[in-house]
Amino acid sequence: MNQQTIDRIRKFTQDRDWDQFHSPSNLAKSISIEANELLECFQWSDTDYDIEAVKEELADVLVYCRNMLDKLELDEDEIVNAKMDKNEAKYPVEKAKGNSKKYNQL
Amino acid sequence: MNQQTIDRIRKFTQDRDWDQFHSPSNLAKSISIEANELLECFQWSDTDYDIEAVKEELADVLVYCRNMLDKLELDEDEIVNAKMDKNEAKYPVEKAKGNSKKYNQL
Amino acid sequence: MNQQTIDRIRKFTQDRDWDQFHSPSNLAKSISIEANELLECFQWSDTDYDIEAVKEELADVLVYCRNMLDKLELDEDEIVNAKMDKNEAKYPVEKAKGNSKKYNQL
Amino acid sequence: MNQQTIDRIRKFTQDRDWDQFHSPSNLAKSISIEANELLECFQWSDTDYDIEAVKEELADVLVYCRNMLDKLELDEDEIVNAKMDKNEAKYPVEKAKGNSKKYNQL
Repeated sequence: MNQQTIDRIRKFTQDRDWDQFHSPSNLAKSISIEANELLECFQWSDTDYDIEAVKEELADVLVYCRNMLDKLELDEDEIVNAKMDKNEAKYPVEKAKGNSKKYNQL
Repeated sequence: MNQQTIDRIRKFTQDRDWDQFHSPSNLAKSISIEANELLECFQWSDTDYDIEAVKEELADVLVYCRNMLDKLELDEDEIVNAKMDKNEAKYPVEKAKGNSKKYNQL
Repeated sequence: MNQQTIDRIRKFTQDRDWDQFHSPSNLAKSISIEANELLECFQWSDTDYDIEAVKEELADVLVYCRNMLDKLELDEDEIVNAKMDKNEAKYPVEKAKGNSKKYNQL
Repeated sequence: MNQQTIDRIRKFTQDRDWDQFHSPSNLAKSISIEANELLECFQWSDTDYDIEAVKEELADVLVYCRNMLDKLELDEDEIVNAKMDKNEAKYPVEKAKGNSKKYNQL
């Protein structure tokens, strides 16, 4: 997400005085709720989905994730790279290649 | 997310030949599953949470969102700004300020 | 669920003094969390799943649903039948037969 | 759930020829989706919720759980009691009393 988009999301929250509702817990609920509106696009079919709805619901998830990063003063690249360090260790290429098993079953 | 982080996520998937598992539907399930691991950090308390766990689970949500953007060849800023256009129209400042009601109840 | 099973769930909560954690909101989070552990059984495949894991996770969802019914003093058959009244009206057989569309798109 | 309610749910599915959509995976998605509509009742407040909406969404979760029990030919009391055996072993009263910690942190 570029800085302009991030700033727009922040201004949206600020203008509406919604920071008061953005506890980390409420944002975690919101991310799950929007993730499930996204999932609903695939409820009865894996292949026949409305791409416009998918774009909107995925955007909603991303906006709430941005709200949570802001609320907890986290840097997106920092937390993602820290997690990728772990993922790369948990799923070594030679073991995980072409395999969807969970790391504890590899 | 900066380009280096995005490239790292793409390489991680590619090296493991995991693109075959990344159908949009499977990614939607994955986003929801990780969103709920994030939610689990707040299962019994809104305020007493493990920030390290929160960072990891939020990172997992963001990685799967990036996988889905890639799979569907979507531009994050584009879909988020298109959704913000709608949000700004649905929640006019004068009506929504300080109010957590849903747009259809404003 | 028969009365003996219901009583066992209630005694389990009571013996551990866990009613204090069972706010409706926490139980809603818990139902979603367990529903996603169930979903995880189908994360990468619709057909190759561990039936023992499915049984355990579905049971967890059902236990938390029972906790919520108890907390809010709801009768399961009453609320399900009230909802089935609505479902039957929203999805008339002649329109909905063999069709997975949502009622507002029928 | 009494037998009459169970039969009504089965007839509802049968009359609409919806069994074809009720793969275990689709039902797992549906349980999560409805669990999150329930969670939405508590999105911004733990205490100020619409009880009528809660009843409807909880009923939806229960209906899809019943669909899954039917699809997989599972007995609700059997799977719940098998899980309660495990829960009682994982959360001994003396350790878990008044404590919301997860079993692996007790």
